[in-house]
This record gives sequence, structure tokens and C-alpha cells, in this order.
Amino acid sequence: MKGGVEVEAKIMLDSCTELGRVRERLRGLGAALEGEVFEEDIYYQHPCRDFAETDEALRLRRAGGTVELTYKGPKRLVGGSKAREEVTVRVDPGEAERLDRLLDRLGFRRAARVAKRREYYRLGSVSVSLDEVEGLGCFVEIEYRGGGGVEEASRSIEEAAERLGLRGKPRVYKSYLELLLERSRSTMRG
Amino acid sequence: MKGGVEVEAKIMLDSCTELGRVRERLRGLGAALEGEVFEEDIYYQHPCRDFAETDEALRLRRAGGTVELTYKGPKRLVGGSKAREEVTVRVDPGEAERLDRLLDRLGFRRAARVAKRREYYRLGSVSVSLDEVEGLGCFVEIEYRGGGGVEEASRSIEEAAERLGLRGKPRVYKSYLELLLERSRSTMRG
Repeated sequence: MKGGVEVEAKIMLDSCTELGRVRERLRGLGAALEGEVFEEDIYYQHPCRDFAETDEALRLRRAGGTVELTYKGPKRLVGGSKAREEVTVRVDPGEAERLDRLLDRLGFRRAARVAKRREYYRLGSVSVSLDEVEGLGCFVEIEYRGGGGVEEASRSIEEAAERLGLRGKPRVYKSYLELLLERSRSTMRG
Repeated sequence: MKGGVEVEAKIMLDSCTELGRVRERLRGLGAALEGEVFEEDIYYQHPCRDFAETDEALRLRRAGGTVELTYKGPKRLVGGSKAREEVTVRVDPGEAERLDRLLDRLGFRRAARVAKRREYYRLGSVSVSLDEVEGLGCFVEIEYRGGGGVEEASRSIEEAAERLGLRGKPRVYKSYLELLLERSRSTMRG
């Protein structure tokens, strides 16, 4: 969606059994299953920078037979929009273990692992993904894919949430990584 | 040559025109050209470790359509033999530029570049490579490939040097990287 608006909502479900109900509704509405993927992300700490402070990230992603190493730069405001440099290198899947070892030797320690099973559907002008996140629970993400502006996007998302029986469910504004790190911090405190 | 001895000699030529004479001799002796490759190695500095001090290295090698990122650990003595951990990750050639950029973003600066054109021949129990190294000059490397011990290896290498008209030429015991770093240091000293 280059040049368009990027509007999405992340909805937390009370339990993963609810995912089945949302799936039924999607099918009832004639939504097409576009894909299903198991994604495993490993986030690394830098040997001498605090990525939490510099707002950077280094991520190794394994998903459906592809492996990618991605550097994410700090979020910046560019002419009123949020921008973030991303540099991604695709790696042969057979090389993932060796890349993890090479990073370890350079002093990059594993900081967190985010693993999720994701099914995604197309429903009119939105894409709906059903996420089962290890250690966190289940979520529904609704992302606008049409060509309209922010208001049109927002309206389409709310309408989809309504049709899927998700109105009034709690919205989440943090990434799965942030939620997992928060949880592990509170567990350590607890 | 797993489990065998690794014996080699590196001979410095006075000028690269000598390379032509060695090539003629090899052909006259019926040596087979086994390959020809342009190898470009980029060595990186670590963002917070002095690799010269820790005896480690990180190298991106482009050679004949393949790209590899290699970590080399410190050299250690293991039961009388020199050993060094190497972790190599093969990368799609189209990803080399992005990998260099990703390393830069993580704070790995380019420390040195070693580029060489290498032709290698098989001559009996030794392999002979003719190296033209950018910024350094031309070299002949003779490596033993037979199954014998150190004495047999050494004898084969000296015999090959003799047949190639290289007896008495200066031997070099440093890597091309070390020679290039020495040269740039002495240039800086003026």
C-alpha cells in the first residue's frame, strides 16, 4: 500500500476459543483465506548499544520457508509521517542456525522470541488476520487495504469489527514484542 | 584435506609480468588450469571490540557468483595443532549490498578490502595459484594436496618451486590482509 494510509486495529480476545467463532463468521461472510503461516521472530540485543534506548531492532524471522534478517532504525517524523529505516537481508533457510551462531559470536544475545500462527483473510477492503501468539494469547488484526483516506479506512475497520462480533473488545496499541517484554518484566517483579 | 597436513608456501614476485612466465612454465609442465576467480573480501571492525586485539575477524567475501559472511574466532592451540572457529553464512549474491548496509547500521565499519584475481592449477601433488592482489602485487601460492606427511609435503612444494623457476624468491608468511594493513600504516606514517 505504497503512498496510501496505513490504518489497522489490533483486538485482544478473552481466550483462543473465541478465534474459532471469528473464523466461522469470516467464512459465513464469504471471506477468502489468503494464507496461513507460522512466524518465529528472534530479537537480538546489540553488544554495546541499548536498542531499547536507541529505538532500533535486529530481528531474525523464519516464516513459511523463508528466513530474513532485518535491521530497524529509530522511528522518525518525516514531513508529518512516521518513518523507520528497514534493511532486510534474505537468507537461505538452511543458513538460519549458522546466522544465529554468527550473531552470537559477534556478541548479539537473544533478547526475545515472538512466535505466532497467523491465518489471514480478505474481507472487502480490509485484511483480517487471526493470530495465536505463544505466551500471549489470541488476537485479531484488521488492516485497511483500500485506496481511501484515513476516515474511510477507519470506517471500514469498525464495520468489519462489527460484522465479526468484535465491537467493544479491548484494543491493543503495542507490538507483540512490547507486550511480551512487559509480561516478562512483570513476571520478574512478581 | 581433512585430517592431513596443511603445508603451503607463498612467494612474492618482483613484478606482475613475472606471472606470465610462471603461467608459461605451468603450461609447459602440463599443469591443468582448474579455475579462475575474482575474490573480493571486505573486513569489518567490530563496534565495540578491537578485533586486532581479540584475534577475530568478520569478512564478507564475493567470489565467482557466491557471497559469504564469515566470522573467524581467535586462533587457539588444540592438541598441538592450530585451530580457529569459523562460522560461515552463504548469502544470495543479490543481497550483498544490503548485508553491507545492515552491518554498517549495526556499527560495523569497513576496515579493509582485499581484492585479488586468482588462477589455480594442479601440478602433481600440489596446487599452484597465481594471485594478482590489488595494491600489493603478484604472488604464487603452492599448497600440498597429497596424502603424505609434513616432510613429503615440504619436498613436493620445493620441487614445484624449482620447476616453476621460483627458487630463492622471497617467501611471505603473512596474510594479504596483514600485508595491506602494514602497507597502509606505513603510508600513513609517511
